[in-house]
Amino acid sequence: MSLLVVGTVAFDAIETPFGKTDKITGGSGNYICHAASRFTNDMKLVSVIGSDYDQNELTWLKNAGTDLSGVDVKEGKKSFFWAGKYHLDMNSRDTLDTQLNVLAEFDPILPESFKTCKYLILGNIEPSLQKKVIEQMTQKPSFIVMDTMNFWMDTTPEALAETLKLVDMLVVNDSEARQLSGEYSLVKAAAKIKQMGPKYLIIKKGENGALLFYDNHIFAAPALPLEEVFDPTGAGDSFAGGFIGYLAATDDISYENMKRAVIYGSAVASFCVEKFGPERLKEITRAEIDQRVAQFVRLMSVEI
Amino acid sequence: MSLLVVGTVAFDAIETPFGKTDKITGGSGNYICHAASRFTNDMKLVSVIGSDYDQNELTWLKNAGTDLSGVDVKEGKKSFFWAGKYHLDMNSRDTLDTQLNVLAEFDPILPESFKTCKYLILGNIEPSLQKKVIEQMTQKPSFIVMDTMNFWMDTTPEALAETLKLVDMLVVNDSEARQLSGEYSLVKAAAKIKQMGPKYLIIKKGENGALLFYDNHIFAAPALPLEEVFDPTGAGDSFAGGFIGYLAATDDISYENMKRAVIYGSAVASFCVEKFGPERLKEITRAEIDQRVAQFVRLMSVEI
Repeated sequence: MSLLVVGTVAFDAIETPFGKTDKITGGSGNYICHAASRFTNDMKLVSVIGSDYDQNELTWLKNAGTDLSGVDVKEGKKSFFWAGKYHLDMNSRDTLDTQLNVLAEFDPILPESFKTCKYLILGNIEPSLQKKVIEQMTQKPSFIVMDTMNFWMDTTPEALAETLKLVDMLVVNDSEARQLSGEYSLVKAAAKIKQMGPKYLIIKKGENGALLFYDNHIFAAPALPLEEVFDPTGAGDSFAGGFIGYLAATDDISYENMKRAVIYGSAVASFCVEKFGPERLKEITRAEIDQRVAQFVRLMSVEI
Repeated sequence: MSLLVVGTVAFDAIETPFGKTDKITGGSGNYICHAASRFTNDMKLVSVIGSDYDQNELTWLKNAGTDLSGVDVKEGKKSFFWAGKYHLDMNSRDTLDTQLNVLAEFDPILPESFKTCKYLILGNIEPSLQKKVIEQMTQKPSFIVMDTMNFWMDTTPEALAETLKLVDMLVVNDSEARQLSGEYSLVKAAAKIKQMGPKYLIIKKGENGALLFYDNHIFAAPALPLEEVFDPTGAGDSFAGGFIGYLAATDDISYENMKRAVIYGSAVASFCVEKFGPERLKEITRAEIDQRVAQFVRLMSVEI
């Protein structure tokens, strides 16, 4: 089923304890498409780039099944750029540079054929833009997932509250869930966030896995314990992209299938961190993902 | 099967965001016995207390199946005392007071009938004392578990290394595993620690669950997401006590059974934090524990 992806397509410069990159491709929309493409080849991307953007990356996305007619190319302008440096523990990072460039003018306009997509994922952008996308849909999607971050909680809380009312699922990390709800206990945080709109909530906990909340159910997925995290950039977006890609490909939004989607998303994210940027996501096959999912199953299996 | 427990039996004064206690009973040996008693009534405790210790607590332990003939009562002296205050997040705490008292003279001498116990758990005490206990065993236990902490890594690393060579399993938290191994990745940390002696390793991650490492296997158990943590004191010891109590009661040290024991230990620990000190552990029945274990199973279950 058609998957509509909205998010940034950008350049990143990354420094980790293992090495350093010049400008490489990144952005939430880009990572989500890379990850989702491992499950579906029916994606439509809405984003904004400058004319400096990497043509090979666009070709790759197209060949992977992404309709790029919703990507606004601003001639003579520069793409969004972020530079960051990870600390030794790889869990925290410093932003070294942020150049909004074309992102400052991002006005997501959906081509006609995008407006009936059955699945919609809103990467982390300004909440009012996320809402504008939802309002352009002429057919209510089966499932809308949104990401957000602490910056929008601080700066545009009202717009965030409005957008939250319109989505089926919010995906945030644990500190964001705590900030949004004002509750330290993630159980209490989840209860409050579900009252804000989304019926489903995923709380990402990095190397400690993820929690899926729905109704009075909780599902705890571990992260795969890894020998090395080479570059954590995009891991959260890869998780979300793998999750929604699996949902869209199976076209099944039952809670049972959503739990499977959490594991598939976790598996894709575990590959993402093995190389800089989205490089590893381009290489992996469905068979490799299935093998890794089997590792997750072994990791969690206990007979009581 | 007989379970030998070595650890502190002490007084704690605890302050949490929810309230404050005067002196209540605590100590690793005490928590371990409380937790293990939910599975077995064949425990032998080695510890040291002053004549000021709470007689009701000793009677409770005895009635729960604990042989107290290895508890050295120092007449006219005071029991070990610790006072601490938890921060709002309940994950970090400040020590307000530590009075070693009789613990400074602790010299664990095993009564003859203790020397053939099949299961042995060494709570967090000086590594040379843990070693002294192992050396008094006239029959090699089926399974020896030890706990330790960063303080011994800093102050008595050689003694710690000697004791590690003699045990089957080490139970530590994530920051302790990282410090002991000098590795940030828990997979690498586990590999290094297993080279130090223990074939089995459990890394506790608090609200993020626990990892069991054995051979090339890893088992990830979640913690139960809780609405409220009333008092985290003793949660780690309750986990270890529930784990070894379940192992001793089932007398099965297969890896499959050890995974079950991790879940039972996690379930007992989730009760411990519901009230101050070991109070909640005294109340819970096996049926309540089994119900909570069923919650863990639901929390982890996914059909792929």
